[in-house]
Amino acid sequence: MAELLVNQICPGATVQGTFALKAKKLLPYREAPGHFLAVTLADRTGSVEGRLWEGAEEADSRLKAGDIVTVEALAVAYNGSVQLRIDSIVKENGRIDPAKFIPSAGRLEEAEMKLMQLIDSLTQPYLKALLTHIFSKQDFYEAFSRAPAAAQYHHALLGGLLVHSVTVASAADGVVKDYPGADRDLLVAGAILHDIGKVQEYRCRGTVEQTDEGRLLGHIVSGVLFLDRAIAGVPGFPADLRLKLLHMITSHHGRYEWQSPKRPKFLEAALLHQLDLLDAQADMFSRAAAGREDGDSSWTGWVKGLDRCVYCR
Amino acid sequence: MAELLVNQICPGATVQGTFALKAKKLLPYREAPGHFLAVTLADRTGSVEGRLWEGAEEADSRLKAGDIVTVEALAVAYNGSVQLRIDSIVKENGRIDPAKFIPSAGRLEEAEMKLMQLIDSLTQPYLKALLTHIFSKQDFYEAFSRAPAAAQYHHALLGGLLVHSVTVASAADGVVKDYPGADRDLLVAGAILHDIGKVQEYRCRGTVEQTDEGRLLGHIVSGVLFLDRAIAGVPGFPADLRLKLLHMITSHHGRYEWQSPKRPKFLEAALLHQLDLLDAQADMFSRAAAGREDGDSSWTGWVKGLDRCVYCR
Amino acid sequence: MAELLVNQICPGATVQGTFALKAKKLLPYREAPGHFLAVTLADRTGSVEGRLWEGAEEADSRLKAGDIVTVEALAVAYNGSVQLRIDSIVKENGRIDPAKFIPSAGRLEEAEMKLMQLIDSLTQPYLKALLTHIFSKQDFYEAFSRAPAAAQYHHALLGGLLVHSVTVASAADGVVKDYPGADRDLLVAGAILHDIGKVQEYRCRGTVEQTDEGRLLGHIVSGVLFLDRAIAGVPGFPADLRLKLLHMITSHHGRYEWQSPKRPKFLEAALLHQLDLLDAQADMFSRAAAGREDGDSSWTGWVKGLDRCVYCR
Amino acid sequence: MAELLVNQICPGATVQGTFALKAKKLLPYREAPGHFLAVTLADRTGSVEGRLWEGAEEADSRLKAGDIVTVEALAVAYNGSVQLRIDSIVKENGRIDPAKFIPSAGRLEEAEMKLMQLIDSLTQPYLKALLTHIFSKQDFYEAFSRAPAAAQYHHALLGGLLVHSVTVASAADGVVKDYPGADRDLLVAGAILHDIGKVQEYRCRGTVEQTDEGRLLGHIVSGVLFLDRAIAGVPGFPADLRLKLLHMITSHHGRYEWQSPKRPKFLEAALLHQLDLLDAQADMFSRAAAGREDGDSSWTGWVKGLDRCVYCR
Amino acid sequence: MAELLVNQICPGATVQGTFALKAKKLLPYREAPGHFLAVTLADRTGSVEGRLWEGAEEADSRLKAGDIVTVEALAVAYNGSVQLRIDSIVKENGRIDPAKFIPSAGRLEEAEMKLMQLIDSLTQPYLKALLTHIFSKQDFYEAFSRAPAAAQYHHALLGGLLVHSVTVASAADGVVKDYPGADRDLLVAGAILHDIGKVQEYRCRGTVEQTDEGRLLGHIVSGVLFLDRAIAGVPGFPADLRLKLLHMITSHHGRYEWQSPKRPKFLEAALLHQLDLLDAQADMFSRAAAGREDGDSSWTGWVKGLDRCVYCR
Amino acid sequence: MAELLVNQICPGATVQGTFALKAKKLLPYREAPGHFLAVTLADRTGSVEGRLWEGAEEADSRLKAGDIVTVEALAVAYNGSVQLRIDSIVKENGRIDPAKFIPSAGRLEEAEMKLMQLIDSLTQPYLKALLTHIFSKQDFYEAFSRAPAAAQYHHALLGGLLVHSVTVASAADGVVKDYPGADRDLLVAGAILHDIGKVQEYRCRGTVEQTDEGRLLGHIVSGVLFLDRAIAGVPGFPADLRLKLLHMITSHHGRYEWQSPKRPKFLEAALLHQLDLLDAQADMFSRAAAGREDGDSSWTGWVKGLDRCVYCR
Repeated sequence: MAELLVNQICPGATVQGTFALKAKKLLPYREAPGHFLAVTLADRTGSVEGRLWEGAEEADSRLKAGDIVTVEALAVAYNGSVQLRIDSIVKENGRIDPAKFIPSAGRLEEAEMKLMQLIDSLTQPYLKALLTHIFSKQDFYEAFSRAPAAAQYHHALLGGLLVHSVTVASAADGVVKDYPGADRDLLVAGAILHDIGKVQEYRCRGTVEQTDEGRLLGHIVSGVLFLDRAIAGVPGFPADLRLKLLHMITSHHGRYEWQSPKRPKFLEAALLHQLDLLDAQADMFSRAAAGREDGDSSWTGWVKGLDRCVYCR
Repeated sequence: MAELLVNQICPGATVQGTFALKAKKLLPYREAPGHFLAVTLADRTGSVEGRLWEGAEEADSRLKAGDIVTVEALAVAYNGSVQLRIDSIVKENGRIDPAKFIPSAGRLEEAEMKLMQLIDSLTQPYLKALLTHIFSKQDFYEAFSRAPAAAQYHHALLGGLLVHSVTVASAADGVVKDYPGADRDLLVAGAILHDIGKVQEYRCRGTVEQTDEGRLLGHIVSGVLFLDRAIAGVPGFPADLRLKLLHMITSHHGRYEWQSPKRPKFLEAALLHQLDLLDAQADMFSRAAAGREDGDSSWTGWVKGLDRCVYCR
Repeated sequence: MAELLVNQICPGATVQGTFALKAKKLLPYREAPGHFLAVTLADRTGSVEGRLWEGAEEADSRLKAGDIVTVEALAVAYNGSVQLRIDSIVKENGRIDPAKFIPSAGRLEEAEMKLMQLIDSLTQPYLKALLTHIFSKQDFYEAFSRAPAAAQYHHALLGGLLVHSVTVASAADGVVKDYPGADRDLLVAGAILHDIGKVQEYRCRGTVEQTDEGRLLGHIVSGVLFLDRAIAGVPGFPADLRLKLLHMITSHHGRYEWQSPKRPKFLEAALLHQLDLLDAQADMFSRAAAGREDGDSSWTGWVKGLDRCVYCR
Repeated sequence: MAELLVNQICPGATVQGTFALKAKKLLPYREAPGHFLAVTLADRTGSVEGRLWEGAEEADSRLKAGDIVTVEALAVAYNGSVQLRIDSIVKENGRIDPAKFIPSAGRLEEAEMKLMQLIDSLTQPYLKALLTHIFSKQDFYEAFSRAPAAAQYHHALLGGLLVHSVTVASAADGVVKDYPGADRDLLVAGAILHDIGKVQEYRCRGTVEQTDEGRLLGHIVSGVLFLDRAIAGVPGFPADLRLKLLHMITSHHGRYEWQSPKRPKFLEAALLHQLDLLDAQADMFSRAAAGREDGDSSWTGWVKGLDRCVYCR
Repeated sequence: MAELLVNQICPGATVQGTFALKAKKLLPYREAPGHFLAVTLADRTGSVEGRLWEGAEEADSRLKAGDIVTVEALAVAYNGSVQLRIDSIVKENGRIDPAKFIPSAGRLEEAEMKLMQLIDSLTQPYLKALLTHIFSKQDFYEAFSRAPAAAQYHHALLGGLLVHSVTVASAADGVVKDYPGADRDLLVAGAILHDIGKVQEYRCRGTVEQTDEGRLLGHIVSGVLFLDRAIAGVPGFPADLRLKLLHMITSHHGRYEWQSPKRPKFLEAALLHQLDLLDAQADMFSRAAAGREDGDSSWTGWVKGLDRCVYCR
Repeated sequence: MAELLVNQICPGATVQGTFALKAKKLLPYREAPGHFLAVTLADRTGSVEGRLWEGAEEADSRLKAGDIVTVEALAVAYNGSVQLRIDSIVKENGRIDPAKFIPSAGRLEEAEMKLMQLIDSLTQPYLKALLTHIFSKQDFYEAFSRAPAAAQYHHALLGGLLVHSVTVASAADGVVKDYPGADRDLLVAGAILHDIGKVQEYRCRGTVEQTDEGRLLGHIVSGVLFLDRAIAGVPGFPADLRLKLLHMITSHHGRYEWQSPKRPKFLEAALLHQLDLLDAQADMFSRAAAGREDGDSSWTGWVKGLDRCVYCR
């Protein structure tokens, strides 16, 4: 029996599957001593309330919000919504498919194809060799292409890193014609690689989380460490070009207070920073307008990452 | 007799023409009582020293640094350079061609053609009508196409406004494919118009100067006043579209501390701000690398507008 | 039958009138299936709870928090307060008198008289002509004299703009004797006009709201556009004086980060900015001290606009 | 023989008097071995060049720029200016009248009279007693009425503290009518006393200098120490009122980054800060416009304390 | 009968004692008209819920959250916790021992002994005399040794000021060997005295509160006033040394925006500021790691004073 | 013949040796056509003027300020100073001993011994192994022990990195007793290693210069890359400990705006940052006081790195 997604559960259904345990609370019975456990279960399609009427204290002590749990339950209608009457709820310690719990960025195949085209279009031999070397390792490619671009706000989606990296590289390709002094291949390669450290920065199970390395070093330092090792795998890679690429990662946030320990020192690094900024802004504006709650209003509510309301007419 | 430009003056030449009086100083004769006047004369190709041996005090009192002067002189060799022995130097109050004194941005014809293509490519009828209305007035078009984009640093050149506006619009055209939610025509029109107030902000005679209006209102407020009147000349122009265009001018510096009284509130305004920033940065990096003094060094000296040195390898 | 204000409603009264719908919530009956609608209704004198026991779902779907509603109800005592048992509640789409919902700044008549005296006291003929021209248009005068000075915090009251403008002008009149270099008429005229764009920035129905123009352009830009047109209606108005007045509006917030695109460039503009700041501060301190909750304490609670507690002994 | 001021020295005059030694430089004779001493001598009316031809090395070793010196010399014409041929120049260690070297703020008598009127106008008995107590001590009154208000920029003049304190108090008196909640006597007394610590902060001999106490504690802390002792000299002075006055001194700069360790916490303290700021601004604008070099221009040069140019039309 | 502390109350116990009234709420009976009063009572060991079933309205009107109250009650088991059935609850206006309500910093005796050793170790006679003079006054010593170092965050404990002052002085003693230019006695004395104004800044009854003097002047100004008077009690205390000590208090926050009206101007003042900062940071990191809720996690939750999460592995 | 240092050159001496060419200028002969070359030559002891009377144009074209030059000359007395009459001046391209041109930090042997003691004192086996591994490589140890700690301001001396690293580690050792929760070995090891990337950041020949890697990556990123490779050379080094050490380097500047891409996340990292700051401050205060020009004054002139004057009494 295939597992039902949250938005497929109807009253009367028998439910057997894994969910992210978003929240739990032990509550007293209304007319008797003792307690029941109220839980919120979620997957990438939404969330549903559940009630465990027996063995609540024991379950409460062995579960933690944030766990992935395997649940057996009956779906019932309650107060106009669906609720699960839970028979069994246990922590799932086995292998989890994050795609069940975290939504995907759209148009992933298009992005994968675009990535291949961009690498293919490089004519600088060492840059082409480096990118081929990096992305031809199947394990790494899979990790890269599923990684999110953030834990919150923009691109907090499976594949977000891929989509963001490709969009920045594509935008770079779109403006480089206007700046004849810029080295197109260096810019495009830097754009593809600039956030590579995010593969180490995040871990996805039920939600996107920062790893200890992500919190202690950050994706700029992790990216530099990764790229330095990757370059060592390309025989004859020029020292100058290595320094330039490492600098582009180091400086791509553009300002010290945005956690770049160096600011861009040459044209391609400066363009990369500006295009990264532009894509992050565009993404936040687009999502804000698309996700506003009140469709009648010309304005979204307060958008946290942008620190303003967005006009949608 | 055609006027000689500064870089065409050779020892022995008779010079008759207009120059910008960069500096002047009354100096005592070495072996006799009395004074002579040492002047620095310039045009867009460079500067030359001159000496007025007779009537120096009188000339000193009627001239002011910054004046445009008509000079009659003989060029002589002195200490390895050319110097002018001046017979007559008088303030020029007549019509001046700024192009004699201020260098031009390169590729102006290409930019003019590109401007026409971009306007032509618009499909939104009111935007096309508005831009046609504005740029078909010959006087205004000439003022716009010769205006500088700044009094210092980047684009302080005749035609700098045209080149900058067209480059931003062209870059907008290059990235808009990556942002399907953006209104291409609104973005391109806004990009062409965003700095239109600079026509009022600067005046060019011997140098680029800010006008009183430029210093008291600034090109954002002047641009809004100009555009508001221009829109009134296009019958039926939608009120919403007017507000959006005025907002794009108002917000294009992106931050309060960069003198925008509003920050961008919708996608096209945000993209315009980012592309304006990107072009300003790219321009400063390109000029810094091109203009460095020591061709052997990998680094330029300190670049004021960028607050850093630029790597040029 | 005259409408009752909220603070006039006593248990037993029959209520028929318009209210602002501050909040609404659909709640389940305690002992039966189905829901009732709990609403909070308000006018300028306070707020009252109401319950709609029948047709709650339907009412919930056609109403929105923020609506002005016409209500028929019976007032009852409940738990020590008054509550309305609602028979009918429908959205009011007709003409609304904001004065029913938004409190008025005090001493409006005094302020109106003071405004007339200040205009009358001007001796510079063009300034006097301009202010007479502006305030003699009845429609505009009414809009101006009822406009609030803000949507929140200080002067968020009908007539707040009038009171604030007049107070700043009067304070200007009070200090100008200490600064003999200042042009008294320019300062007083600028003080009266400095916030004129707020007539466009806000709209009052049930609450004070920013208009789209207010959010996209702001009262500085709107004020400049308004004043520019008004000046065009005074034949022979000197160009210099126009620039000075427009600059005083443009710069009156005093700092870029407070949304002024220019900082004050002459004495009267500087004084205007300082007096505007002084009045805003004085207003926040006065209101904080007057409005503190705990009359025994020497200190108010945290005051948001001031970012501090206020000492009231 | 009365001492000549610098602007009274004509060629041929015998000069005998004290000057501030602004600068000195040992220079080689043009045609012989050995050196002469070139000095710049100044008083409040201007500066004059001098030459000591004999004993230059010895004089150079016993003098220091900044010294007050007694000079005997003959005035001669040189290169269109006056120059002093110095016979004797020795350091003056005796009592100096700073008024010879530092210009006075204008209208001191008017300010003294206004101060007395303001103190006289107080009706709160303890405040009146305190101010009477402070200003009736002749030594202190003299120090106060001659102290400068700054070492640079605005009010760096003998009597500057008096003029500034009285102007702020007078402006306070001018606006307090517009703020009925404010305690007029507290505000006026605080205004008179707010900068009292500047009596300790500066020392005047040939120039205005900060004392060690001024540099290590600053006039806010010195003022609090002074006022605390003065209040102890007024029997029965209420504890509350003491705290309020000390707070007004402590907070009058208004912001931590402007060296106030507390921000204003009640209306009178807030008004005092705003009026202090207003007077400092007005003073800088007035001086900038009055002191511009090029009388033809509509703009001053860059004004350091204001960080901008000032419009003077 | 000895009073029970909150963590000693068991079901069945008769409770008679004083508590801090943290919160109170009047709630309706579930099945009858009328109300009961729900209160939260606390001491330094924790908090307990209580219910007053009779006379609730009357009690509600004479009590205020924050009061210290004397309670007579019976402890019962309710819903798995202890609850008090209150017979009597009245405001306690008599003398209160804050130690009952506010936890103590640990290792106070060790700190007291260390303080004595540090004072004893001073060899500069005036500094030793000053510290002996200050700490030998029994009343002051008791106030000092019980004072908290803050109202929130770090050192908000009885004795916190003592522990913090001694730790900074001890750390100063530990690093001074590495800086041969520093005056060890001045540094240690300054470290002991730097926060002395906190004795005036806080008041402890049921909780730590800022006094009016603390809020209007702050501990830097209060400390300077206190120390100035104390120095006056040491005959012959050198003027230079007085200025240095007063400066060390004035500047110990190190930055204007951290409320120091002067920044450190000599080595010992600079070291004091750095060590004060180091101790505050160390204290926050130590407490954050010690107090984290989820012992399994490598990270604490968000720590307010540090504005980050702390790694605890 | 041993080379003379600049401060050993007396009139009459024959000079043959290498110098840093600080500045050069081609000047016209006073009484004849043609030019001579005026140069400023320096070593670590000071600078001396020189004149090349023959072949000046040719020498000017082949030399550049900043070059190391080999000079043959005769020392003469001129105008009270020593001047070199240069016979030959050629660029030195061979091996240079920077110690001739850059002063050394004092007490280097003491620092080397202290470093060994600190490493020896470690008891955590992996940390001891790592530090032994790093410092036992002779080449690296020599580079480390001669490296400067900065190109300007504090520690711009040969050996400055060693002295700074050891002082911070020693101060860490001195305060760690006051913070029982801190891991002493981790703190000391981190202190020794925190600036290790400066070995790559600077290059010393005639002066201290930043390398391309220093300018493009900075010592934080270089240090992380170096340490990561060094750890790989210690078999079994724990992953957790690696992350902690890398974090301590990454975060040791403490703030984003000071170029740390992460802020300290645990106690030892926080203490390291504070002690690094303390040592930098102490160094600047000590040098400022030691290096002031006017020994009579209680104050130094403006100290750039500290942004203030320093009190020296």
